[in-house]
Amino acid sequence: MIGLGQPHHDPSERWVSNPTPDPGETVTVEVDVPSEAGVDRVLLRTMHDGEQRWSEGESSATSTGARWRFELTCHNPVNMYRFWCGGGGGARWLTGTGMLGHDPLDHHDFRLVTTGATPRWVPETVWYQIFPDRFATSGRHLDEFPDWAVPSGWDDPIAGRDVRMRQLYGGDLDGIVDHLDHLVGLGVGGIYLNPIFPAHSNHRYDASSFDRVDPVLGGDEALIRLREACNRAGLRLITDITLNHTGEHHEWFRAALADPHSEEAGYYYFTEHPERYETWLGTPSLPKLDHSSESMRRRFYDGPDSVLGRFLRPPLGMDGWRVDVANMTGRYGMIDHNAMVRSLSRRTSDAVSPEKWLVAEHWFDATLDMIGDTWHGVMNYTGITRPIVSWLGELSILGSLMPGPGQDERDGTMVARAMDDVRAALSWQSVLGSMALLGSHDTARWRSMARSDELALVGLGLLMTVPGSPCFLYGDEVGLTAADNELARRTMPWDESQWDHSWLATYRQWIQLRSGSAALAHGGFRWVERTADSLTFIRESIGERLLVHAARVAGASTMPFGLFGAGAIDRVIGEATADIDAGHMTLRAEAPGVTVWHLT
Amino acid sequence: MIGLGQPHHDPSERWVSNPTPDPGETVTVEVDVPSEAGVDRVLLRTMHDGEQRWSEGESSATSTGARWRFELTCHNPVNMYRFWCGGGGGARWLTGTGMLGHDPLDHHDFRLVTTGATPRWVPETVWYQIFPDRFATSGRHLDEFPDWAVPSGWDDPIAGRDVRMRQLYGGDLDGIVDHLDHLVGLGVGGIYLNPIFPAHSNHRYDASSFDRVDPVLGGDEALIRLREACNRAGLRLITDITLNHTGEHHEWFRAALADPHSEEAGYYYFTEHPERYETWLGTPSLPKLDHSSESMRRRFYDGPDSVLGRFLRPPLGMDGWRVDVANMTGRYGMIDHNAMVRSLSRRTSDAVSPEKWLVAEHWFDATLDMIGDTWHGVMNYTGITRPIVSWLGELSILGSLMPGPGQDERDGTMVARAMDDVRAALSWQSVLGSMALLGSHDTARWRSMARSDELALVGLGLLMTVPGSPCFLYGDEVGLTAADNELARRTMPWDESQWDHSWLATYRQWIQLRSGSAALAHGGFRWVERTADSLTFIRESIGERLLVHAARVAGASTMPFGLFGAGAIDRVIGEATADIDAGHMTLRAEAPGVTVWHLT
Repeated sequence: MIGLGQPHHDPSERWVSNPTPDPGETVTVEVDVPSEAGVDRVLLRTMHDGEQRWSEGESSATSTGARWRFELTCHNPVNMYRFWCGGGGGARWLTGTGMLGHDPLDHHDFRLVTTGATPRWVPETVWYQIFPDRFATSGRHLDEFPDWAVPSGWDDPIAGRDVRMRQLYGGDLDGIVDHLDHLVGLGVGGIYLNPIFPAHSNHRYDASSFDRVDPVLGGDEALIRLREACNRAGLRLITDITLNHTGEHHEWFRAALADPHSEEAGYYYFTEHPERYETWLGTPSLPKLDHSSESMRRRFYDGPDSVLGRFLRPPLGMDGWRVDVANMTGRYGMIDHNAMVRSLSRRTSDAVSPEKWLVAEHWFDATLDMIGDTWHGVMNYTGITRPIVSWLGELSILGSLMPGPGQDERDGTMVARAMDDVRAALSWQSVLGSMALLGSHDTARWRSMARSDELALVGLGLLMTVPGSPCFLYGDEVGLTAADNELARRTMPWDESQWDHSWLATYRQWIQLRSGSAALAHGGFRWVERTADSLTFIRESIGERLLVHAARVAGASTMPFGLFGAGAIDRVIGEATADIDAGHMTLRAEAPGVTVWHLT
Repeated sequence: MIGLGQPHHDPSERWVSNPTPDPGETVTVEVDVPSEAGVDRVLLRTMHDGEQRWSEGESSATSTGARWRFELTCHNPVNMYRFWCGGGGGARWLTGTGMLGHDPLDHHDFRLVTTGATPRWVPETVWYQIFPDRFATSGRHLDEFPDWAVPSGWDDPIAGRDVRMRQLYGGDLDGIVDHLDHLVGLGVGGIYLNPIFPAHSNHRYDASSFDRVDPVLGGDEALIRLREACNRAGLRLITDITLNHTGEHHEWFRAALADPHSEEAGYYYFTEHPERYETWLGTPSLPKLDHSSESMRRRFYDGPDSVLGRFLRPPLGMDGWRVDVANMTGRYGMIDHNAMVRSLSRRTSDAVSPEKWLVAEHWFDATLDMIGDTWHGVMNYTGITRPIVSWLGELSILGSLMPGPGQDERDGTMVARAMDDVRAALSWQSVLGSMALLGSHDTARWRSMARSDELALVGLGLLMTVPGSPCFLYGDEVGLTAADNELARRTMPWDESQWDHSWLATYRQWIQLRSGSAALAHGGFRWVERTADSLTFIRESIGERLLVHAARVAGASTMPFGLFGAGAIDRVIGEATADIDAGHMTLRAEAPGVTVWHLT
């Protein structure tokens, strides 16, 4: 399946004059039509207040064919569009999933939204995810460990199933401050912190208060110190909020249990007070919140003085939130408050500053949740993680939270299709606002999921070259392995003799390439070739164009080079070679790997 | 592309124990797995409050392979599901668009809704569409024609563009009463009446009042006489409402113009009173309604005493409404009240009786509008009309309201894909609640769109065998032709010497087959074979199974008959032959046509 030779458009700044239009704004959209495509007429099809509209465009010649240009007025919140292509090749549609020979639903359409932009810094940032208890300790002595905790030494192993959630290793926020040089040396642009609220577990997803940072981590003062240190180091900082439930020890839930007539009793779904209430996946320690309570919404996420708002404002000044289990939040049988939660949260975040970022945990099909006033993006498990793992790794261990089948090995053509489905069904703003990842604190470590170390590095190369904001878990960069998500939460080894230094050097190379490239941050995405064992694509911004070739086995592909419209090709990372001969190019990989070239 | 040999499920009563579940109800869903499929394990994947769930099933042997059976609890308003199929054939997904080899979004999932059922009579009904001014006149003398009207004799031709909207031929509701024997003789089950409100045009989409039936048509009393006559004849009766706009002569709009502070001024979008206001597609005579007005909603469609409610109740007692331009209603730039209009209208209709039907005009992708509390169905231009016309006719003349390209000839495989896309993205209740049509008062007549008379009858056979509630325009059955939608609105010729009697006999045959078949009304839909020039499928209810073969050219197809699990095949209509030999069946068509067999 060769992509070049076919007409191309994507809603990136490469092909749209302004990918973040205001309501009513008219933008220019462009389609590249190679001569080989057999297309001699292109029309733009849009929807306007629910009704179809056709627009004629203008074409001009390019070195490889023609460029068609159309005016598109962004009249609605979501502006769907696609292109009709007529000519010798028969009438087809150019859509977000490529060229279609049947008359499709709008599901495949490109889309431009007028409901707010993703901050430009988001896709420019490579994230370093830190599980606070396990990254580093400042060495300060805790007067008293919480009574639920099982204190563990830094080098102690993860304990058995009944104890592991309570093991406390003593990592804290000042410990992170002490090791920022490691992050700066890697070249990452931001830290994603797992929850920092007080709780009764080391993962802290069972918050007992939203009023303060856990004293075990150093409290609010430590978070302010970390914020300031990150500012000095040029690092972004986000942390984790759960809007779906609290812990059973939460102040609100204690008040609710104590008095069925309390305001807080209305924050939860009691079916029989106080014994029976709805929970997160049947876990009694995690009572589910009822978002029909206006009082709860106001305290928690509606408005700048809410918890969500307060942590975004100085002096805490987080750059955004990762929203835990966003897929379930507000959903309970016939009740669905999810759209309200998304919209109010976004309003709060935008009110503090449109430069803040909300990224939602979502392991499944988030596309319907990403219409309108909503999160900027999702943790892109469906559009990036699963497809890549299905090509290079063992999906069966992807998430211990996601047991079951449907985690099958796929060839490259099916992987590309899964990625395309998601990219096409999200606005480009949501694609750029989503987190790209190969794993997290909820999965096995990527190096253990990959079928070999070579393939793990193929995954790393893809992570750093696909659209989105890449994120990896602390310690991935020094070669840590872990067969499940609990083992993945081991402590960071600070004895550098335990590090895989060659692995670290490779991570650093890819992070630095990613962090310095406008094409990888903002550029459009265009397939060149998809085969069972290789994926080749172009990322192109206005000023930069990169060719990316990922091979999971040794092999070679030959393609017509003239179509690229490039004069020169210059390798910037990787081991594959590009031989150009008589207008064709052969990409040859002697081993699995990802190679990137500048096209000029 | 052979469909049998692959696992099959559809959300019809054939494979779901109760396709209209209550909230929380557990139903059984079944998958037919032919031995040839290479599938030895099937799992059910559902979503529950936004989270994925897996269910194990039970399998039992059948004569052709296995039947897998699962319990599915309908916990949410829309319950999405699909099946994971593992085995020698590799892991694939069984979805609403068939077997997929990549990991898809939920868009393709089957869906069961708990938000209300489509009345069972809807898909059992074949509709006869009547444009009131043009079907028949009772001969009563109108004291005075409306001043806007240009009176025309019954046999006068349709006039030129500037006059045609005002030509009045004098058809009326009592004229319909006089000719119900024609409808009964055809075997149709209901009448769909274009608008009957007073207006300033013959199409009456520019209502000047909603308080009464147009006196030109005989007023409320005539509608009651028609209702009673239909009851005696066993015919359903629906008519047409426009919630998007009124006419400029409407009482509400006159009040709004007269006083910018009137309640009615808030029913419209005035940008500069009284000169400038939002309209239907820029037509000043059709001012667009602002649905943020609670007063307008209450008078128009919210509650049993509204216009929408009153016409459904005795003595007028319509069986439902066709909702004009539902796709645009309530949509205006950044404002989108469409979901509210759908939900309130449905609530009103259900409050009068859950046996009423709301079917929305929608020429485009209606699938996002069909989630939740909404219309029972749409006029299925996208899932049925356009695909069939793209196979057999000239799409360029489909709708004079829909000019432009994107109306291209398609081969059968692409036609099937377009139909599948829509059927899969709607709940089965919405599929059955949608109107199947080849044309309407808004298109050229089907016989003129088809590339030949033979192909027009292929279309008729498909219209009567696909899922949905089939509808055709008065006069189609006697062979009328018309190259555009205005010419299509010619008067019904009652001089039977002008009729094509052989055409009429064919229509009657198909209507009677359709009206008497449980499989065609309620049965599931399963592809047997899709080629460029033939479409073969099975419709099966619990008690009846039909094989349908449509050919657009002469030809033959051979398929393994054993897979059907049938012992005998018995032709009920059409000219193709089925020869069975050594476990294979050859379907042979000597000419274009549709043939239907009973399988027993």
